[in-house]
Amino acid sequence: MKTLQIGLFGLGTVGSSTVEILTSNRELLESQLGCTTQISKICVRDTGKTRSVDTSNSILTSRPEDILLDPKIDIVVEVMGGIEKSKEIIEAAFKNGKHVVSANKDLIALYGKELSELAKQNNCHFFFEAAVAGGIPILRTLQTSLTGNHINKISGIVNGSTNYILTRMEIESLSLESIIEDAKALGYLEADPSADLDGLDAARKCAILASLGFHNLVKSDQVYVSGIRNISLEDINQAKKLGYKIKLLAIAENKDRGIVARVHPVLIGENHPLAGVQYEFNAVYIDGDYLGQTMYYGRGAGGNPTGSAVVSDIIAIGKAILSQTKPELAYASMGNKDLIDIEDLDFAYYIRLVTDHDKLGQGGLVDLLDKKGLKIRSMDKTNRNLEISDIDKIPENTDLGQNLVNVDQFVIVTERVREKDFKKAIKDLEDISNSITVIRIEEDI
Amino acid sequence: MKTLQIGLFGLGTVGSSTVEILTSNRELLESQLGCTTQISKICVRDTGKTRSVDTSNSILTSRPEDILLDPKIDIVVEVMGGIEKSKEIIEAAFKNGKHVVSANKDLIALYGKELSELAKQNNCHFFFEAAVAGGIPILRTLQTSLTGNHINKISGIVNGSTNYILTRMEIESLSLESIIEDAKALGYLEADPSADLDGLDAARKCAILASLGFHNLVKSDQVYVSGIRNISLEDINQAKKLGYKIKLLAIAENKDRGIVARVHPVLIGENHPLAGVQYEFNAVYIDGDYLGQTMYYGRGAGGNPTGSAVVSDIIAIGKAILSQTKPELAYASMGNKDLIDIEDLDFAYYIRLVTDHDKLGQGGLVDLLDKKGLKIRSMDKTNRNLEISDIDKIPENTDLGQNLVNVDQFVIVTERVREKDFKKAIKDLEDISNSITVIRIEEDI
Repeated sequence: MKTLQIGLFGLGTVGSSTVEILTSNRELLESQLGCTTQISKICVRDTGKTRSVDTSNSILTSRPEDILLDPKIDIVVEVMGGIEKSKEIIEAAFKNGKHVVSANKDLIALYGKELSELAKQNNCHFFFEAAVAGGIPILRTLQTSLTGNHINKISGIVNGSTNYILTRMEIESLSLESIIEDAKALGYLEADPSADLDGLDAARKCAILASLGFHNLVKSDQVYVSGIRNISLEDINQAKKLGYKIKLLAIAENKDRGIVARVHPVLIGENHPLAGVQYEFNAVYIDGDYLGQTMYYGRGAGGNPTGSAVVSDIIAIGKAILSQTKPELAYASMGNKDLIDIEDLDFAYYIRLVTDHDKLGQGGLVDLLDKKGLKIRSMDKTNRNLEISDIDKIPENTDLGQNLVNVDQFVIVTERVREKDFKKAIKDLEDISNSITVIRIEEDI
Repeated sequence: MKTLQIGLFGLGTVGSSTVEILTSNRELLESQLGCTTQISKICVRDTGKTRSVDTSNSILTSRPEDILLDPKIDIVVEVMGGIEKSKEIIEAAFKNGKHVVSANKDLIALYGKELSELAKQNNCHFFFEAAVAGGIPILRTLQTSLTGNHINKISGIVNGSTNYILTRMEIESLSLESIIEDAKALGYLEADPSADLDGLDAARKCAILASLGFHNLVKSDQVYVSGIRNISLEDINQAKKLGYKIKLLAIAENKDRGIVARVHPVLIGENHPLAGVQYEFNAVYIDGDYLGQTMYYGRGAGGNPTGSAVVSDIIAIGKAILSQTKPELAYASMGNKDLIDIEDLDFAYYIRLVTDHDKLGQGGLVDLLDKKGLKIRSMDKTNRNLEISDIDKIPENTDLGQNLVNVDQFVIVTERVREKDFKKAIKDLEDISNSITVIRIEEDI
């Protein structure tokens, strides 16, 4: 009976969970595989460090070649993260005829196509289910179960940290800033949280989903990105009054005239399945031409869910080795549609505009917007006392003699309009107010 | 370049959609497969009938052997339904070396293991993704993506008709009976709706999910079944007041002491992802030991979603043929845990009890239940006027001289108790009231 030999790069959260799953669920895995598995070597930076998993020291190494040049090793599992070094290791693995599992979204978003071609040239399997939405098996589903469909649109909550923040803001009525601090303390956010908060992490996943879902290469730097830093509790509350929730979505659309790939906060109808996805959970909502709408929900990050995806890839490769299945090219038959600029898309918009009290009436604002070609679906004006702590949301020349300042707040929902026309139209509003929040409403979902 | 030849049995809703998808999405399918596909023959009962899809008459036949004995045909697609005839056809297909795709849940629930063994003996692939939850790729996900996990529990809304009925009752405040009539007219229910309403259809899917998810054979007649016929609008409203929705769930649990397989209405917390699944949509919620909770949502029936699943199976087989992959046994390494009787499980219960007005006070009822060992979590008593049309819910000896009868209604939520003890405890309540509705509350989900 064959033993499947595994070489692991990285023993952080995901690496440790991978070791634990392979150990605790050994019997289950082996009964499915029909062979035994063994973690032969683990490459780490520091072999002396104390580890949360029980590994014999003899299998720890700091030299990549101990794995890459070991002819007994069948599968290389890369869960060390980073880009250049990981790329070198995976390339070397393929050149040495080893199959690879990777959980590295940054790497796949940049070099997925190139690496999958190298894998194929070397007759190696290359799986990276864990790279997008952790425990949700979305990549394999796109590549095996939805194959009968033209995928029209993919909309995902694929960054757990930002969804956690938005959910707590909504449920606990807390400010973005206070939850960011809390999330850092709880380990949900890195010390430098910009990849999450600015939508860059979601953009990488958007690029991978669009590429594999539409068979058309999309790179992460082609994805329009805007994060959640300007979303305030007030916006969440106003959205709720209008029947919406605010979510950071990664959206990819496959249109006749091109591909759309964008990551930004949206207002989404409160009854939409994506609106119910709370805290650190992820979900990917897919619209296929015959399938209709389908959604995949689960934990998008964390050692165990991600490790679970890594292990499913190991088993898939194990089965393929045993049945001598030829590797498939992951980035196969890629088309070459152009990307559509977000300025050429139509949206309805949510606008929250704060002015000095009595600077402008509702009628005046409607007239002003109408003159700019912006049709209004609804408008609500309230006179509010803002706290000084909201200073950045208060018009510049407002008198701050008191702890509270008196302002007017307009919440406006527009009809659908081309984004470039919208941008021109609201430009002049900056003269009236220096606090304008604009969020797109996602209606065709 | 090889052409994949397909023989189709059945040209109803699913068969027609399968033909349409293979035709309209030909280019997409062929670019993924790397070969062309052709529907060579279609076996139907009546070759003269007018069809909604455009098929050349020359490929229609009423003789199964035209497909089964045609050496050019690679894949047999069985979408004709029924049991004995379909079984014979699939067996003959395997014996003639043909791979098979089936959408037949009734057949798979009864003979899935047997047929998958016959497939393997004949070195044939056998896929039946469409048999459970139509367009939701739940079987392939269980068999490829969740393989690293011990699956603890599977809970599914797998019957679209009953979910459609319960959703409309809730949203439109209509009675079960009126929506059943409407659903029949709209084609959501068969003329004889018992397979749906009594939970038998869901039980078949429950058996398949339990077998494949737990690697332990469960037959549909081993599944505890109770349908939705006794769910009234009043129960839906009372559940809502308590923070629950009523759903018909198919639940399979993999416990140390055995397997649980049950289909019955439950009260489920209104914020649970399954609670938000509306109308004809299906969803399967899975708890794995490392993965945690994950859910798969989509259309569980209808020609196009089901046809989409059939086509994904055709493509999977096509790829396997081209890469000479050895068939896997679908019902592999089946364990032999016993089934646990529902009487040996613990639940909290919702009880709605109607009595003559002033027959019993709240204190008296609590005492009575307490004496029987039933602890009460909450109780609500209302004095109500019931319409005569609710006659079957009115105590036998009530005076019906008026159009309205005056009764007391108690809505009780119990603490968790072993089902067999609960049944004994409430037996005596039948003397007090001839209208008792009991629904289990699903808490560990």
